[in-house]
Amino acid sequence: MTQDTQLEPLFSFDPHTGRRVYDPVAQTTSAELAATVERAALADATWAQTPRRQRASCLEAIAAALDAAAPGLVDTAMAESGLPSARLTGEVSRTTGQLRMFADVIRDGGYLGAIICPHDAARNQPDVRRVLRPIGPVGVFSASNFPFAFSVAGGDTASALAAGSAVVVKAHEGHPRTSAQVAAVVRQALHDAGAPTDILQVVYGKSAGSELVRHPAIRAVGFTGSLAGGRALFDIASGRPDPIPFFGELGSINPVVVLPSAAQLRRTELADGYAASLTLGSGQFCTNPGVIFVPDDAALLTAIADAVGATTVGPLLTERIHDGFQAAVTDEVWASLPLLASGTSDGAWSVPAQIRRASLDQFHSARDILTEERFGPAGLVVTYSDASQLLPVLTQLPGSLTASVHAEDGDAELAAPIAEALSAKVGRLIWNGWPTGVAVSWAMHHGGPWPASTAASHTSVGATAIARWLRPIAYQDWPQSLLPEELLDDNPTGVLQLRR
Amino acid sequence: MTQDTQLEPLFSFDPHTGRRVYDPVAQTTSAELAATVERAALADATWAQTPRRQRASCLEAIAAALDAAAPGLVDTAMAESGLPSARLTGEVSRTTGQLRMFADVIRDGGYLGAIICPHDAARNQPDVRRVLRPIGPVGVFSASNFPFAFSVAGGDTASALAAGSAVVVKAHEGHPRTSAQVAAVVRQALHDAGAPTDILQVVYGKSAGSELVRHPAIRAVGFTGSLAGGRALFDIASGRPDPIPFFGELGSINPVVVLPSAAQLRRTELADGYAASLTLGSGQFCTNPGVIFVPDDAALLTAIADAVGATTVGPLLTERIHDGFQAAVTDEVWASLPLLASGTSDGAWSVPAQIRRASLDQFHSARDILTEERFGPAGLVVTYSDASQLLPVLTQLPGSLTASVHAEDGDAELAAPIAEALSAKVGRLIWNGWPTGVAVSWAMHHGGPWPASTAASHTSVGATAIARWLRPIAYQDWPQSLLPEELLDDNPTGVLQLRR
Repeated sequence: MTQDTQLEPLFSFDPHTGRRVYDPVAQTTSAELAATVERAALADATWAQTPRRQRASCLEAIAAALDAAAPGLVDTAMAESGLPSARLTGEVSRTTGQLRMFADVIRDGGYLGAIICPHDAARNQPDVRRVLRPIGPVGVFSASNFPFAFSVAGGDTASALAAGSAVVVKAHEGHPRTSAQVAAVVRQALHDAGAPTDILQVVYGKSAGSELVRHPAIRAVGFTGSLAGGRALFDIASGRPDPIPFFGELGSINPVVVLPSAAQLRRTELADGYAASLTLGSGQFCTNPGVIFVPDDAALLTAIADAVGATTVGPLLTERIHDGFQAAVTDEVWASLPLLASGTSDGAWSVPAQIRRASLDQFHSARDILTEERFGPAGLVVTYSDASQLLPVLTQLPGSLTASVHAEDGDAELAAPIAEALSAKVGRLIWNGWPTGVAVSWAMHHGGPWPASTAASHTSVGATAIARWLRPIAYQDWPQSLLPEELLDDNPTGVLQLRR
Repeated sequence: MTQDTQLEPLFSFDPHTGRRVYDPVAQTTSAELAATVERAALADATWAQTPRRQRASCLEAIAAALDAAAPGLVDTAMAESGLPSARLTGEVSRTTGQLRMFADVIRDGGYLGAIICPHDAARNQPDVRRVLRPIGPVGVFSASNFPFAFSVAGGDTASALAAGSAVVVKAHEGHPRTSAQVAAVVRQALHDAGAPTDILQVVYGKSAGSELVRHPAIRAVGFTGSLAGGRALFDIASGRPDPIPFFGELGSINPVVVLPSAAQLRRTELADGYAASLTLGSGQFCTNPGVIFVPDDAALLTAIADAVGATTVGPLLTERIHDGFQAAVTDEVWASLPLLASGTSDGAWSVPAQIRRASLDQFHSARDILTEERFGPAGLVVTYSDASQLLPVLTQLPGSLTASVHAEDGDAELAAPIAEALSAKVGRLIWNGWPTGVAVSWAMHHGGPWPASTAASHTSVGATAIARWLRPIAYQDWPQSLLPEELLDDNPTGVLQLRR
């Protein structure tokens, strides 16, 4: 393989020290990118025709291999991400849990949306049978903040492999070595399971990423990352001679509304819960609570300030994220608001948590700036004196992944209209809980109106995440001998068939 | 209402004579467009919260009103489109059939994709419940060739109203008066049914169309029309500060493959069927068979030439379509191919059907030009001498709405790989039939890989067309008192709830 001398190798850094660790990983050249995608496309054709039960077994084999390799993978990810061992160990379990969930999803087969309309002579209708089929090779962009669960073998990859698509992953610059190790484990597991190893590929570097989105063989893209980066790639995908869907999860401020009775009855619990959610993973969650609306109550504000003041956060994931956070919290509008509290921090690229305070009026008048995502442990506490004034402010919020409502019996009258207003803005509503921590379950939805997602109609977590990598096909008067098995009259695999 | 003097009024023309009929309809000014969308957005909020059963009754009331008004509507559409009475009368039935089908779809409720994952203490999982909700106000672009079924009250509108969205339709310039009359019937029916009349609006003119796609309140767009027009609007939708989904159905050549045994056994039937499909609606169907692959058999080619030579086609719908067709068939590459047959025509804007002939090699070497859609009664007959050479050509075809295979027992060995190759390229496969005529049934899929559709994963016909106007929302630990009824434990409306 030739090496483009203009592309610097990718070094790994320890965020605790800012120093290099490991040998660098080479960036993928244009020629390598093209060859990689072509290998994936060849393997895709085989994989798409592999029976569902066999694909399910392969996903479980990948999960088992990752579980077995977890200790070594966690060590590498700790060195590259600065995240603690327990968190990363849990994240591997989450990752393998996702793979196993999608094995269940494709065994079940209901996701194929089979509909059968038999020939109807009276209405002069032909026999029409609809089912979903894999869309073709998929590009996936890893996230910085989940070196396992939203990376090489993360949810996008798991759902695309489940659908029957080959996947080319663009590794995140924050953890190239972890990415390479995960890929090696996955490819070995595929090989051992008798599946084509080329259905999982990893490429490195920013230029390889944009070339991936442009490559004619790629039929759809999944992305988790920043608004600016996601928008640039979305524009490439949409601007192609043949546009392809770009499923991006971009920025989100995840509003939290604390209603008066809840504030009164659960002051300490709310303050502690908020501080924990705000600083989880050094604040680097797409579901981080960026704005919290609370009653203008001195005791509550003191409790919140105390809780956040007591936090210590570890380093941010990369120097770039660190610098971006510093810029975001020195923004003029943000920095002019009174500081309610700040915590302490630990490590070279670390930043202390900080929360600032604004009135409902202040927030409303600088809404566009104050609702920008500040990726890291920064939170805005917006105080209200009259809860009835919340509604017009909430209806003006930008799209978010989540909104949370804290309420008790005394808040019942307020809760309904506030929930309705928030439901128009988000993809997930949480009752008396915090937005960080996205359960991996069939019903989960992780997406929302722009800028939370490029496509509010799709999710990157939960069983229906597979829908991104499928397209329908209808068979008209098609012979049983040539139909996909899910559309056969005798339904040999027992999938849900809607008959009308 | 103010009138922008720069916007010429829209005249109706009789395609048989090329002369004006009716008084013109004024184009919608920028100010009117904004006011119209705002009215729709207000009504949308009410409609989205109207219970499904009530929405279903409103759709049926619209269907009944259109059926009652059919004679007058058909008269107007005949004058504006040049299409015959029987065709247009059938099209009104198709239109009201679609409205009634979507009433059934939303009463059924399975389209909401309800999934319930109850609280699982052992796995530390919260209660999560997912359902689909309406996306918000929708823009719809009418098609030229279906003044009813793909226009003001057509499938896009029916599915969006069913979903719970308000609709602003951009009327097609080919039938402004029909559009206004249909809108009046629909709005009166909504009024009589006690629904907000502003959930159905019509705007006129090209600039109103692009402003509609740009308007911040519009959350998604449906479009049926040309590749050039659709691409321009897709680019506007994707280029917004907040991109919105654009579900466009653009161009399609709908390949037909006739295998040797079928050609031998059903020569006359195939020739007649092809000529009828090619000239149906003067060839102005998105499912028109643009390319047919047949054995190089003199008797079959003669039969085809005779059948097409015997056709008389009526006028094209508009002067613009007429001029576009003339340009498309004087294209250098096209015009250099031998003319196999041409028919006769009738009316001012009419054109005779014409079919040209190419070998497999000729077709393959000029593929990009020969697979452009020529909207009207033009067909390419590609002859093959060895059926095994078809496969590499078929895998290079652009995306289409449909592909058809004509085969008999003797073709069994060839049929399977050819069907598989075609299935990668299209949204519907037809066995021993013709692509024109899209059955309105739950399982129908009308869409396909680019350029057939901007989004191969969505359909504009069939029950799942409603999915374009929905987005998911998940409720986490949400109280029963505030959940949508489809997610309640006691499931009062009896919808399909997937429990996991």
